[in-house]
Amino acid sequence: MASMATKGSSISGRDFCCHVPGGIHIPSHRHRSKRVSIIRANSRSNPQSLDLNKVNGKKVNGSPRVVEGGGAPFDFDGYKVDHHSPHSCLMGRFVEDRLVYRQSFIIRSYEIGPDKTATMETLMNLLQETALNHVSSSGIAGDGFGATREMSLRKLIWVVTRIHIQVQSYSSWGDIVEIDTWVDAAGKNGMRRDWIIRDFNTKQIITRATSTWVIMNRETRRLSKIPDQVREELVPYYINRVAIAAEDNDLDKIDKLSDDTAERIRPDLAPRWSDMDANQHVNNVKYIGWILESVAINVLEEYHLMSLTLEYRRECRQSNLVESLTSSSSSHANRKADVVEFTHLIRLQCDKAEIVRARTEWQPKLTAHLI
Amino acid sequence: MASMATKGSSISGRDFCCHVPGGIHIPSHRHRSKRVSIIRANSRSNPQSLDLNKVNGKKVNGSPRVVEGGGAPFDFDGYKVDHHSPHSCLMGRFVEDRLVYRQSFIIRSYEIGPDKTATMETLMNLLQETALNHVSSSGIAGDGFGATREMSLRKLIWVVTRIHIQVQSYSSWGDIVEIDTWVDAAGKNGMRRDWIIRDFNTKQIITRATSTWVIMNRETRRLSKIPDQVREELVPYYINRVAIAAEDNDLDKIDKLSDDTAERIRPDLAPRWSDMDANQHVNNVKYIGWILESVAINVLEEYHLMSLTLEYRRECRQSNLVESLTSSSSSHANRKADVVEFTHLIRLQCDKAEIVRARTEWQPKLTAHLI
Repeated sequence: MASMATKGSSISGRDFCCHVPGGIHIPSHRHRSKRVSIIRANSRSNPQSLDLNKVNGKKVNGSPRVVEGGGAPFDFDGYKVDHHSPHSCLMGRFVEDRLVYRQSFIIRSYEIGPDKTATMETLMNLLQETALNHVSSSGIAGDGFGATREMSLRKLIWVVTRIHIQVQSYSSWGDIVEIDTWVDAAGKNGMRRDWIIRDFNTKQIITRATSTWVIMNRETRRLSKIPDQVREELVPYYINRVAIAAEDNDLDKIDKLSDDTAERIRPDLAPRWSDMDANQHVNNVKYIGWILESVAINVLEEYHLMSLTLEYRRECRQSNLVESLTSSSSSHANRKADVVEFTHLIRLQCDKAEIVRARTEWQPKLTAHLI
Repeated sequence: MASMATKGSSISGRDFCCHVPGGIHIPSHRHRSKRVSIIRANSRSNPQSLDLNKVNGKKVNGSPRVVEGGGAPFDFDGYKVDHHSPHSCLMGRFVEDRLVYRQSFIIRSYEIGPDKTATMETLMNLLQETALNHVSSSGIAGDGFGATREMSLRKLIWVVTRIHIQVQSYSSWGDIVEIDTWVDAAGKNGMRRDWIIRDFNTKQIITRATSTWVIMNRETRRLSKIPDQVREELVPYYINRVAIAAEDNDLDKIDKLSDDTAERIRPDLAPRWSDMDANQHVNNVKYIGWILESVAINVLEEYHLMSLTLEYRRECRQSNLVESLTSSSSSHANRKADVVEFTHLIRLQCDKAEIVRARTEWQPKLTAHLI
């Protein structure tokens, strides 16, 4: 999946090309109500209804609902799955009247890091996989990664502009995690995709994530409005629910780091051939590895990465050499005791153009409140 | 898992330390008979027998048998699996009287490369995962990655000395692969582990692999003989079967490249934090990415990597900067039309000490005979 910039202005795709991000307005989630409701597993009627036209009619209206942990697990399937297939559990499935897509994963030995728990890179890989399977299972998929049919007809692709992940607890090798994902509108020309990750055994929510996506023409690399035909494909899947309540979301601007403000700079990071994805771009997830390259080793060793916000601003191709910048910051740290916060920038080495800004929050391993 | 050197001499662990590989004799597989037999799925009697003492009595004696593709698939379970568990197919299971361990995987979106097929790194990750689950499911696992209880008691770990992988066909995103793995003795103080990967739908064998392992003391970093108590744990699992027939195996010496003989040298490769595994070493699999860094881009783009042989000679830790060397070679290319062959070396940049030697074989994508 490609990644691209968002700015606080309305769509102006004309000046948008591969390395010159255009602007698009993604409305803040701040306007949303802070009312929090618990979605109960069996609160939806008629689980057999698979009629897409009806599904939209059942969309929860009003305030977005926040998924809460510790309540009744979502054991209920709104979609008939062939449980007799020997590999049915390798696949995801729709639940809750096809509004939520769910897939289980077992954490593999090579997905854990030096501290023997799943890495942030692993979590983001699993979120990506679930999102792509959501689209491909929906029946609206085109020929691109995550694109709908009407998008493919118009050479349009999704680009992510922002993603925010909150980790309560990292899984270990062999743990089974259950990921739910769903989508909703984000303003007129954006789409929001949320995820929650549950530990399958405890049913506790261990990770929450939200992301914002816009549409780009894959040839001109210009941002596009969402065509009506694409919107018609998407709307039946929209659900008014948020993984992260507005007051817990990280919507603050991420400061741009420079040579003057960065405390640590790691130059000469070269994308490897194996960092490229099927779109011939550096895969979004690989940025995490580069960000960590400019974080002090004692932080990596002694702290848990509890929160990550990525703000994508530009594509990165294989020929680009990049630099990773990190500085400590405090915009959020004051909300939580013993949390340290950093601001990061990945930029092109040649002309210092920004690729991705990031913010991370870390908690000492000894005091981290793991579920 | 750590990786370490093998030399053509008998055990001399005294001079063996972290960066000074000692010698150990791994007998060549050349002495094995070239007779090829097809193992039929139902050729074993009494699939209910789970008595480990009996299992060894049923070991196939005589010439090793080569697993052949296209025959009857191994649908038969020698071990009762709880198929009612919602996640049973995420786990592996024993088949064929607990002599073979089998696990299915679905290829994920982030496991495919620019050409949209699973990468060699992905295949090696899945082989590692299956091997580790084999040990942990066997009931003999200790507290280390892949170590047995008697090994853990003695602070012993497995180190791989050589691995050879032959790929007939690369899978795509969403394909299900079924991996079988088993072990056998390799001389007096080594263990051989083999794998075959089948495409689940076609049942064709799409990858074969074999590897050789020795035991090292994790504190002294010296190689060790296999203690009798460890051998007693392992022997019930040994099966006289090979994934790759002796005449198809790559047992030839891999020449050591130098500044004079290398055609391409890629310096300044730095292990990333995310390359480290739970043993605080660079994970074996990561070497593949470094090897590819000194392969010409037109080869990466226009050829399939059909065969890879890695000969591990030294551990690599995070502080080490490494260089990747590649040169074209011809020891095997003459056997197959339109195959190009390369020799590789990953070495420490500071003192040029060898970490891993490798040989790769590539076939043009247009003419590759994919199943």
